[in-house]
Amino acid sequence: MELTLGDILEARERLRPVLYSTEMVPSRILSDDGRQVCLKTESLQITGSFKVRGAYIKIASLTDEERAHGVIAASAGNHAQGVALAARIFNTPATIVMPEGAPLAKIQATRDLGATVILHGLAYDDAYTRARELESETRMAYIHAFDDPKIIAGQGTIGLEILQDLPDVTAIAVPVGGGGLAAGIALAVKRLRPDVMVYGVEAAGCPSMKKALEAGEPVELDSVRTIADGIAVRRVGDLTFKICKQYLDGVVTVDDDEIAQTILTLLEKSKIITEGAGATAAAALLYNKIPVKGKIACVLSGGNIDVTMLSRIIDKGMMKAGRLVTLQTVIEDKPGRLHRLLKMISETEANIVSIQHDRTNLDAGLNNAILQITLETQDHAHIDKIVRIMAESGYQALAR
Amino acid sequence: MELTLGDILEARERLRPVLYSTEMVPSRILSDDGRQVCLKTESLQITGSFKVRGAYIKIASLTDEERAHGVIAASAGNHAQGVALAARIFNTPATIVMPEGAPLAKIQATRDLGATVILHGLAYDDAYTRARELESETRMAYIHAFDDPKIIAGQGTIGLEILQDLPDVTAIAVPVGGGGLAAGIALAVKRLRPDVMVYGVEAAGCPSMKKALEAGEPVELDSVRTIADGIAVRRVGDLTFKICKQYLDGVVTVDDDEIAQTILTLLEKSKIITEGAGATAAAALLYNKIPVKGKIACVLSGGNIDVTMLSRIIDKGMMKAGRLVTLQTVIEDKPGRLHRLLKMISETEANIVSIQHDRTNLDAGLNNAILQITLETQDHAHIDKIVRIMAESGYQALAR
Repeated sequence: MELTLGDILEARERLRPVLYSTEMVPSRILSDDGRQVCLKTESLQITGSFKVRGAYIKIASLTDEERAHGVIAASAGNHAQGVALAARIFNTPATIVMPEGAPLAKIQATRDLGATVILHGLAYDDAYTRARELESETRMAYIHAFDDPKIIAGQGTIGLEILQDLPDVTAIAVPVGGGGLAAGIALAVKRLRPDVMVYGVEAAGCPSMKKALEAGEPVELDSVRTIADGIAVRRVGDLTFKICKQYLDGVVTVDDDEIAQTILTLLEKSKIITEGAGATAAAALLYNKIPVKGKIACVLSGGNIDVTMLSRIIDKGMMKAGRLVTLQTVIEDKPGRLHRLLKMISETEANIVSIQHDRTNLDAGLNNAILQITLETQDHAHIDKIVRIMAESGYQALAR
Repeated sequence: MELTLGDILEARERLRPVLYSTEMVPSRILSDDGRQVCLKTESLQITGSFKVRGAYIKIASLTDEERAHGVIAASAGNHAQGVALAARIFNTPATIVMPEGAPLAKIQATRDLGATVILHGLAYDDAYTRARELESETRMAYIHAFDDPKIIAGQGTIGLEILQDLPDVTAIAVPVGGGGLAAGIALAVKRLRPDVMVYGVEAAGCPSMKKALEAGEPVELDSVRTIADGIAVRRVGDLTFKICKQYLDGVVTVDDDEIAQTILTLLEKSKIITEGAGATAAAALLYNKIPVKGKIACVLSGGNIDVTMLSRIIDKGMMKAGRLVTLQTVIEDKPGRLHRLLKMISETEANIVSIQHDRTNLDAGLNNAILQITLETQDHAHIDKIVRIMAESGYQALAR
């Protein structure tokens, strides 16, 4: 089935009364002398991601009779909420199969939107198989997460909005999972403005589009491993592959450390919350993986990060940047010693976050205690300075 | 010195080319059948808070000669960045005295804006005293954080923007620290639209405006203690008190738990980042402290939360809501036992976050090990159910 620019233009008219055209926010932190980056904040779309666009267009394309039998989908996250909301707008029953172990907040959000959630299997593939079984056993319509022309047309509306809000755009960076978002945007943009470059960005732990382009056809990855769970798709779609092959100017990858650091940077400097998948295109710009100049549109595709994951990313990111450190040393268990050491440390402008003083540890020797001290620091050089100053006073400090 | 509506209107014209009129975002989570709440997102203002408005108007009011001598201010946070940016726009040297122990990210952000930062004393009061000394020793102009008609006029522009963007507003909730923001908004709104209610919201650990209104004059609090450090002001201003006394319809307080839970809710449900002070007005609405109906504007005054604080708020908030728990139990150190226990737990739909299995602990007895298991759970009832199921199989579990 062919997908045309007209389909995407039609999708936009259908979505106009239902969803926001999300804001494009200039990003100082991603811009430099040669480029001005604007963020397309689909992370602030209803349900926290772009997925509702395609789901709505797909369900709108069903007949009344098909809708009456309900829809079914498999998803570990954003597609679940997108389908649930779109189905609710059409007053259509929705069933979503999610893998066991999916974040409880996402399961709850999907149920809150009125969908029936079935937990099945340990991985997305298991949930997918079960959803397809249910499709064949019932008369529910299957809503694919990406490999469907209606879904792709819905996601492509983002490309139209970018061209309208940023008419002098020179390049667009977009995350790639199954390829629906990238295919839709690339098709819309290239048909209207062939001069605008469109780059896909994948997680290095799941480069399924890159491998497919190299092989000339979709291939199934043996294993995938990335914090960008929203784009951890083993095999891209047949239709999405065909469109991406024709229209994408390139696909680059970013690793988990780069993604995590980008989530932290957007949070801290721009006050914008992104999930792993949602931050990949921004990571590609932050780490200069894409050779573009001029006005760049960067798609932040989703913001539904699990808050416990966010908390871990903050802590790890601070450690990695040398802004938080835990030092361990042995200190004589005598009055005044601890006070003197802490004074020395605070004179370096480090902030003391927490102190653990353990005199029961046998490794330390009878008159000694083990001291673990967590500090807020400026950078690695600051930590080195503190360790040096402690060493000069006879405290051998170990960074953990 | 008198402050007029004209001063605030003039301030708006001056600010128009320099700053954004920040967006008003509808909030589903704060709205209910009786009220529709819109968030005035000053947390997304340049420098991450409203403070730059007043600082700009104040520096604009200085003579060229005064500006040539530079400006000085004391601040532990947002006022520092506001003054630094405003001074940079006027090409005026800025010196900011900050207390030792201020978050390093805020110190760095202030330096990045071109200001000279002096660290002095342990608390804000020490920094304030030092800044006033430097003012008298040099010819630098002091930029007060709130008690100055120019500062108040600058902050009051937010009130004008709310009336313009939300013409059918019935009430406004605004955080109160020194009172500059509340005084400016209340004056602007009440002179133009006396029918609109304006409520101030303070941290329960620092109710300086509430106490002042009760006493009929500003009073100095003995001690202040709140996570909303941006509004932890011991004594409100004389001018801000006078205006707030005349125009505010009431002042309510929210405690640290309510503030923290609101930060987490805005983060998770609305993808909006707020700092403690910035979330107080939203907390007052979330916990129904203000008796208002209709269209409500809620001022989110700042978003500069320290990310390590944010990480702690997430973890504590999850624990408190029963969405994260660490259980400790004693388990026989035999093959298969651990596996069987974990299977039992996962069948309740809890997600296992981490496991610590310690067989060296002597308290557990020779053939036993201490098991610490951290779980993602739905709520407290879910935790109770897990503890009950474990007890039925002979595992006495202790929630820590």
